Amino acid sequence: MLMRAAGRLAKRARRTTVAATRSYVAPLKELDFCINEVHDFEAHYAKHFGDREHVNAETLDMVLTEVAKFCENELAPLNEAGDAEGCTWVDERTVTTPKGYKAAYDQFVEGGWQGLSFPEKYGGQELPYSYSIFQADMMATANWTWTMYPGLSKGAINTIYSHCTEELKDKYLPPLVSGEWTGTMCLTEPACGSDLAQVATKAVPNGDGSYKITGTKIFISCGDHDMTDNVLHCVLARLPGAPEGTKGISLFLVPKHLVGDDGAVGDFNKTNIGRIEDKMGCHGSSTCEINFDESQGWLIGSENKGLNHMFTFINTSRLGTAMQGVAAAELAFQNGLPYAKDRLAMRALDRKNVDREPDKAADPIIAHPDVRRMLLTQKAVAEGGRSMVFECALIVDEMQLATEAGDTAKYEALDDRLGFLTPILKGYLTEMGVEAANLGIQIFGGHGYIKSNKQEQVVRDARIAPVWEGTTQIQALDLLGRKVLLQKLAPINHHCKGVAKFAFDALVAGGTSSDGGNIRSHAFQLLKHVAEWYWLTLSIGKKAMKDRDIVGSASVDYLMFAGHVTLAEHWLKMELAADAQLAQGGGGQDPDFYKAKIATARFAFEKILPRARGNVATMLAPSDVTTSLPKGHFSFDY
Amino acid sequence: MLMRAAGRLAKRARRTTVAATRSYVAPLKELDFCINEVHDFEAHYAKHFGDREHVNAETLDMVLTEVAKFCENELAPLNEAGDAEGCTWVDERTVTTPKGYKAAYDQFVEGGWQGLSFPEKYGGQELPYSYSIFQADMMATANWTWTMYPGLSKGAINTIYSHCTEELKDKYLPPLVSGEWTGTMCLTEPACGSDLAQVATKAVPNGDGSYKITGTKIFISCGDHDMTDNVLHCVLARLPGAPEGTKGISLFLVPKHLVGDDGAVGDFNKTNIGRIEDKMGCHGSSTCEINFDESQGWLIGSENKGLNHMFTFINTSRLGTAMQGVAAAELAFQNGLPYAKDRLAMRALDRKNVDREPDKAADPIIAHPDVRRMLLTQKAVAEGGRSMVFECALIVDEMQLATEAGDTAKYEALDDRLGFLTPILKGYLTEMGVEAANLGIQIFGGHGYIKSNKQEQVVRDARIAPVWEGTTQIQALDLLGRKVLLQKLAPINHHCKGVAKFAFDALVAGGTSSDGGNIRSHAFQLLKHVAEWYWLTLSIGKKAMKDRDIVGSASVDYLMFAGHVTLAEHWLKMELAADAQLAQGGGGQDPDFYKAKIATARFAFEKILPRARGNVATMLAPSDVTTSLPKGHFSFDY
Repeated sequence: MLMRAAGRLAKRARRTTVAATRSYVAPLKELDFCINEVHDFEAHYAKHFGDREHVNAETLDMVLTEVAKFCENELAPLNEAGDAEGCTWVDERTVTTPKGYKAAYDQFVEGGWQGLSFPEKYGGQELPYSYSIFQADMMATANWTWTMYPGLSKGAINTIYSHCTEELKDKYLPPLVSGEWTGTMCLTEPACGSDLAQVATKAVPNGDGSYKITGTKIFISCGDHDMTDNVLHCVLARLPGAPEGTKGISLFLVPKHLVGDDGAVGDFNKTNIGRIEDKMGCHGSSTCEINFDESQGWLIGSENKGLNHMFTFINTSRLGTAMQGVAAAELAFQNGLPYAKDRLAMRALDRKNVDREPDKAADPIIAHPDVRRMLLTQKAVAEGGRSMVFECALIVDEMQLATEAGDTAKYEALDDRLGFLTPILKGYLTEMGVEAANLGIQIFGGHGYIKSNKQEQVVRDARIAPVWEGTTQIQALDLLGRKVLLQKLAPINHHCKGVAKFAFDALVAGGTSSDGGNIRSHAFQLLKHVAEWYWLTLSIGKKAMKDRDIVGSASVDYLMFAGHVTLAEHWLKMELAADAQLAQGGGGQDPDFYKAKIATARFAFEKILPRARGNVATMLAPSDVTTSLPKGHFSFDY
Repeated sequence: MLMRAAGRLAKRARRTTVAATRSYVAPLKELDFCINEVHDFEAHYAKHFGDREHVNAETLDMVLTEVAKFCENELAPLNEAGDAEGCTWVDERTVTTPKGYKAAYDQFVEGGWQGLSFPEKYGGQELPYSYSIFQADMMATANWTWTMYPGLSKGAINTIYSHCTEELKDKYLPPLVSGEWTGTMCLTEPACGSDLAQVATKAVPNGDGSYKITGTKIFISCGDHDMTDNVLHCVLARLPGAPEGTKGISLFLVPKHLVGDDGAVGDFNKTNIGRIEDKMGCHGSSTCEINFDESQGWLIGSENKGLNHMFTFINTSRLGTAMQGVAAAELAFQNGLPYAKDRLAMRALDRKNVDREPDKAADPIIAHPDVRRMLLTQKAVAEGGRSMVFECALIVDEMQLATEAGDTAKYEALDDRLGFLTPILKGYLTEMGVEAANLGIQIFGGHGYIKSNKQEQVVRDARIAPVWEGTTQIQALDLLGRKVLLQKLAPINHHCKGVAKFAFDALVAGGTSSDGGNIRSHAFQLLKHVAEWYWLTLSIGKKAMKDRDIVGSASVDYLMFAGHVTLAEHWLKMELAADAQLAQGGGGQDPDFYKAKIATARFAFEKILPRARGNVATMLAPSDVTTSLPKGHFSFDY
C-alpha cells in the first residue's frame, strides 16, 4: 500500500517556484541529521526491529521523501485558505471542512498513510512508531489543522487497540487504521476540563452489553467533519452507582452512525453536534460540542477504569502537542528567514558585519544582531526541540514492541521514563514554540500583523498548544508533583545521573575537529545545570514538608528550568554529532551545515540556557508571596 | 462644553448588571490612589497650574467620573462586536467603521472631550495634558480600536499646533480640536517602516504655496472612516532636489477633502484608499493604504525638516502605546479575575489555603498558586505600569506649559528626560502587556481560546503594541544606543542617581505602619539593581569600543532589565504610599486596599524583578554569538 502511495506521489514534481520559498519546505537534511547522526536510529532499528525485513534504510528514506512531497505539495498549500475559510456547522450531524481538506485526506487514505505504524492484522504497515513521529513532524508544520484529523484518530486507535475486546477491535479497527473512518477523544464537559473528577455524562446499561450514553461534551477536536462516513467517539461517562470522582469514570465507544455486523454504516446514533467553536486559530479543525442523547455505546476495557484507559496514551498524545511547539518554531523560522534576508532597513553598526550590503539602499535586516537573535532562537527551538521529540521516539518504539509482546513490566518501565520527559517536552516546547512564533511577528515588523504574510496565523494556531492536553500549569504540577516528588525522586535520579554522565564524558573527551572548541565549555555548563536541577529538586522537596504550596508556586519555573537544561543537552548532542562529522573528512559535501550546528549550539548555550537564571531567582520564593492575598482583595474596583 | 458633557452623561446610570462584571469597569479607586497618593498630582497642579481656576480637584473628579461612565456604558459594549464586524473598504474614498462607532464618536465630540487638553484659542478646554492621559487609560482599556481614532488625531493636532503657520492653524485646528474632523500620521511606505531614510513619496511645488503630493503610504491607522466629514493627513514626502536619506524629508498637510476659505469641505483631494489591511486584531480601527495622486498639500514647518517635526511628539505617541500595554494587562486581569474566582477545578494542595471551598465540587482555580501567580503578574503590570505612565504625565504637563510659554530650553530638557523613559515604557510595558494578555488565556484554559470569552481578542489587539511606533528592537536600540551611549551617559547618570537616592531614602527610613516591614528589603533590592544597571551600562560601553555589535546584541536584554527595575521602583513608590496611608489611621475605610498593595509589591519584588537575572546572564555574551553565522548558513534546506 505504501508502495502504491510512493509510485503515485513520485509522479508529482517537487515544487520549486519562488512562491514555495514562502510556504513549507520539508527539512529533510535536518531530519536526516537528527535521525542518523544525532540519535543513530539505524542501530536502534537493527537492535529492535532486526527481524522485520521491511524496516530498513530504503523504506525509511521512501517514507520521508514521500511524506515530504505530500506535505509540500498537498498540505501546505491548504494551510492559509483553511484558516480563512474555517469549518462550518451545518446541522446536528453535519460539519464541513475547508475546501481541499477532504481531497487531501482521500489521498492520504489511498496511500495507506494512516496505518503506517499500526499492526498488519488491522490493515497497517506495522512500521516502527518512530516513522509516524517523523511523519507527524512534517505534517504538523505544513498544516497543523489538517493533521489533527488523522492525529486525533490515532489516539482513538491506540485506545481501542489496547483496551477493547477482540470483537470490538475486529469490527472497528480496520476502518480506523485505513483512515476510512476517524476517531475522537471526548473528555471535556462544560464544567470540567483538567479536573475530570467532575465528569457528569451518564451511561446506563441496555441489558444487551451496550449502554445508553447521555451528556454534553465540549471542545471535541475533529468531533465531526465531512471527510469520512463515520466518526467513532471514545467517551468518558459514569455508570449508575459508580464511585464519585475519578474512580467512577468509565470509557465507552460511541459511533456517530451505528455499524452493522457486516461493517456497513447505519442509523445516526444521536451524537448531535450542538455547535462548533469560534476560536482564535486552528480554524481548519472543527471543535465540537456533542450532545449525546441516549446514544448507543460499548464499554472500552473495565468499568470505572476509564480514566486509566484514556490516559494510557496520554504521553504519546502530549508528545504530539510538544511537536506542535516544534512545528510552530520551524514554520515561523521558515517564514521569517527569507523576509529577513530580503527586507532592507538601516545600516549594521559594525562595518565588519558579514551581511552588510553597501550597494543597496540599506542592509538586509538579518545583518542586525537582534534580528539574528530572534532567528537563532527559532532555529535553536525547532532543531533542538526536534531532537528532544525524536529521543522520545526511541522509547515509544520500544513501548510498541512491549505492547505487541504483552510485556507489561517492560512497557511500564518505558512509560515511566517517557512520563518523566513528557511534561518537560510538552510544557517547555509549546511555550517556546509560541515565543518563536511571536518572534516571527517581530521579525516582520508591522507586516507580521497582516494576515497575508502568514506569520500571525502561526501565532494563532500555536497559541492553543500550551493550553490543551493539559496546560503548562498542569504539566508543571505533573512534572514536579507526580513525576518527581510523589515518586520519591526515582525518575529524576535516573535522568539526572544519565545527563551528568553524558556531560562528564563530553567534558573529558572534548571535541575532535578544529571547530569543536566549545564542547568542553558547553559540557561544563550542562553538568553544572544538571547538578543544580537536582539540588533545586531537593530544596523544593525539603521546603514542601512545611510549605505544601511551594510545589505549585515553584512548578512553572521548575518546568522551564528543566526545559532549558534539556534543550541545552540536545544541543550538546548535536554539537558532538556535528563535530564528529567534521572530524571525519570535514563533513563531506556540507562542512558548512555542521559548522552552522556548532554555531547554533553556542547560541543555545550563551543566549538560551542562561535564561534559567531568571527561573532560579524566582522559583524558591516562599509560596505565601502568591498565596497570602485573599481572593476578595485582588481588586477593590470590580 | 465639559459641563454639558457632564450633565448629559450623568443621567445615565452606571451599569451594574452581572454581565458588566465581565466587561470593563473603570478602576477609579486605583486611579485615585495613583494620582493622589503615589504621585501627588494635587501638589503638581497647585505648583504649575495654580493660576488656572478651572484646574482643581472638582474638575478632575468630574472628568474621571464622566470618562469612566462613557467608557463603561458606551465604549466597552462596542469592543467585542467591533472586533467581529471590523471595518469595510467600500471604495477609494469610503471606509466604514463597525456599528455604533460613529454614534459613540458623535457623543464624544458633543461632549467636547477631544479638546480636553488643547488650547482654548482653538476650542479646547486647556486642561493639563495629564487629564488626557488619565482619559486615555480608561478609553484604551475599554475599547482600544475606537480610541485610536481620536488618539491618532491628537498626534496630528500636536504636530500642526507646533509647526504650522498661524494661517494653517486657524484654518485646520478648530475642527480637529472639536473632533469634527480627525487627523492621521502618514509615514510608512511599502519599502520602509522603521527606516524612513527610504521614503519615496514626492512633493512638487505648485507655485502658489501649495504642493502636489504623489506616492503610496501604507499602515495608516484610522486613515479613513465614516465618522467625520474630513480627514487631515500629515504626510512625509521629498521635495525636488532634496538631500538623500532622512535629511531630505519634508512634512505636508494633505486634507482628504479640500477646505474652502470659509472652512467648508469641498472637492475630494485624490487621497485614494487602495485597500484596508486584514489584520490579526485591531479590527475596529482601519489600517489604510493611501495612494496620493497629485493631492494638494501644504508644507508643515520647514523644508527637509519633516522628520524632526514628525518626531516632536514621538515620545508622547510612544507613551500612548505604552498605555496600550497597561490596558492589555488591565483588561486581561479584569477578564480573568472573576473566572478564576468562579471556575472550580481540583483541590488546593495546602489545607491552610485561604481560598479553599470544601463544600463545593472543587476549589476555585484562584486557590492554585500558579493561577494566582498569573493574576498577580497581570495586576503588578497593570498597576505598576499605570504608575510608570502617570509619572511621565507629570513631565508632559510641564512640557505643555513650556510650549505655551515658548520656553524652548526648558521644553528640550524635559523632552530629554521623557526621551530616556519612553523607550523603557514603550518597550517593556508592551512586551509585558502581551505577556499578561497571554496569561489571561492560560487562566481560562481551553475557554481562553474561544472568542466569546473575550480573552483571545485582548491578545490579538495587544499583539501589535510591541511592533508599531517602533518595535521592541527599535526601542532597545533607541535606549541603549541613542539615549545612553551617544549622549555619553548623561540621561542615565541623572536617572540612576535619582532612583538610587529614592531607594536609599527608603532603605534608611523603612516603613511606618505595622505592615511596612518589607520596605527596607525592597529598597535594598532596588538599590542593588540600579547600581547593577549602571554597571552593565559601563560594561557595554567599554565592550562597544572593540565590539560595536554588542550594542544591538545586548539591547533587548538591557531594555527588559531596565523595565524590570523601573517596575520595581514604582512598586516601592506604591508600597511607601500604602504604608503611609496605613500609618495614618489604618488606611481609612479600606485598610485592605493598602494591604493588597503591599502584598502585590512583595510579589513584584520576589517574582518579577528577579527575572532580570536571566537578562543579565545573556546580555553580555559576545556579539559574535549572534553575528558570526553567515546568512546563507541559517538553513540548508530552504
